[in-house]
Amino acid sequence: MRSMKGQARATRFTVSLPDPLMRTLDRLRSGRGYSNRSEFVRDLLRAELVKGEWQEQAGETVGVLVLVYDHHTRALADKLTDIQHHSRGVIAMALHVHLDAHTCLEVIPLRGAVAEIQGVANRLISVKGVRYGQLVPATAGKRLI
Amino acid sequence: MRSMKGQARATRFTVSLPDPLMRTLDRLRSGRGYSNRSEFVRDLLRAELVKGEWQEQAGETVGVLVLVYDHHTRALADKLTDIQHHSRGVIAMALHVHLDAHTCLEVIPLRGAVAEIQGVANRLISVKGVRYGQLVPATAGKRLI
Amino acid sequence: MRSMKGQARATRFTVSLPDPLMRTLDRLRSGRGYSNRSEFVRDLLRAELVKGEWQEQAGETVGVLVLVYDHHTRALADKLTDIQHHSRGVIAMALHVHLDAHTCLEVIPLRGAVAEIQGVANRLISVKGVRYGQLVPATAGKRLI
Amino acid sequence: MRSMKGQARATRFTVSLPDPLMRTLDRLRSGRGYSNRSEFVRDLLRAELVKGEWQEQAGETVGVLVLVYDHHTRALADKLTDIQHHSRGVIAMALHVHLDAHTCLEVIPLRGAVAEIQGVANRLISVKGVRYGQLVPATAGKRLI
Repeated sequence: MRSMKGQARATRFTVSLPDPLMRTLDRLRSGRGYSNRSEFVRDLLRAELVKGEWQEQAGETVGVLVLVYDHHTRALADKLTDIQHHSRGVIAMALHVHLDAHTCLEVIPLRGAVAEIQGVANRLISVKGVRYGQLVPATAGKRLI
Repeated sequence: MRSMKGQARATRFTVSLPDPLMRTLDRLRSGRGYSNRSEFVRDLLRAELVKGEWQEQAGETVGVLVLVYDHHTRALADKLTDIQHHSRGVIAMALHVHLDAHTCLEVIPLRGAVAEIQGVANRLISVKGVRYGQLVPATAGKRLI
Repeated sequence: MRSMKGQARATRFTVSLPDPLMRTLDRLRSGRGYSNRSEFVRDLLRAELVKGEWQEQAGETVGVLVLVYDHHTRALADKLTDIQHHSRGVIAMALHVHLDAHTCLEVIPLRGAVAEIQGVANRLISVKGVRYGQLVPATAGKRLI
Repeated sequence: MRSMKGQARATRFTVSLPDPLMRTLDRLRSGRGYSNRSEFVRDLLRAELVKGEWQEQAGETVGVLVLVYDHHTRALADKLTDIQHHSRGVIAMALHVHLDAHTCLEVIPLRGAVAEIQGVANRLISVKGVRYGQLVPATAGKRLI
């Protein structure tokens, strides 16, 4: 919700949203205290650009992959372990939390070039039976860590 | 990049961005293969709404907090440990990764009502010396986990 | 190497060892600075009794299971995950360290009655393909933790 | 409880124990199904020799340190984190379990030469406020891991 005061020039563009999405947007926006849609979208974009900067940085960086899966899926734990061992340059360990009788939360720190981290993360997320996967940059922006 | 075909009605609004932010937006947008800004913003909003749904759900849920900090900050490790122990209903453990001589990555699973999870996460993120904190929902949407 | 001074009465018994074991014993004993075998065995026994006390205590206690295995053994990761999920009252999480392309180190905190902890630990250690398993009491003696 | 049959020669020595220790020994011994004290001590010694072999091996090996401490001890978490970061060649991470409002269980994989592992483990165990520390070899004998 930073003000645009003192910022010399601005450009406009138009966003078109299906009505149900617009209603949800308005609910979120007012819930977070934004008085207009443009401001809300501007802050979303700023957050996205931080991620974008992370993706574009050179050199070694760190990310954390969050996976949720049902361990009853046949051979799933075996496959995830296998991919991780074959990516040992990037993944050294995983914390496995037993959420309930079926559901596993696996939290995996990754370290390496952004492309390597994203490659390994995508391989893990796309294993059949993984219900949710999210890669989180462990950095606030351009600096490594 | 889902098409809007077959969706009956749409509404428009205008976003105003400072020029440097607009240029970064365009770089990201074309890098991800979006042909227009409206589509790019629409998909950002959809992802945000998933987070919004997580925040609004009732009952127990699970999240993962990623913290990066410099452990040389006086009493920082003590404070983080203290807050976590006082939030034992929500936090049972933490994985601490020693990134380099200064930098710590701490990955903390949290479990409880959304408001509790966010309250504890915010207390930890706001400790002086924490350089980066990000709370990740461990769920794809409305369902618990 | 505590002295027996001031301890009123002692009893003796004889230990018979095959020669190679006796030679290794003497090497260890002198390496640790013990001047006679009886003293060395006495301190080994004292350490064992601490474990014995742990095993005999009532109420909830905490242990840590260290497992080493080759993840290429078919279905091994699946079986270990399955046993852990079915023992969720005792095991909430596991830290999995990728030692090399083949070898996994898994470190598992356990919490519960001693008999439960030992039961689950034995089930995990006896899975085919586990090369090493060791249950460590997380307590110095009779007190819980 | 391996038999000594087929083992050509044996040597005897005498162990002297204070009476209370002897009584506890007999309780443990019969609880584990040993019919005589010599056999019980022989198996204890065999287990100890495995540890001894671990301590004498050359090259890189792996161990796990189990620490229990009260995090309310002033600056304790800070000191443990500091020592671990300064030993990054040996320690890459730690799993911290919040046992209760006061008590922490910290489980730390270590990797390096045996002397390095023992040096770092001893530095951590001897920090004021650590109530219990135990270093577990993550190996069954002479082979690395």
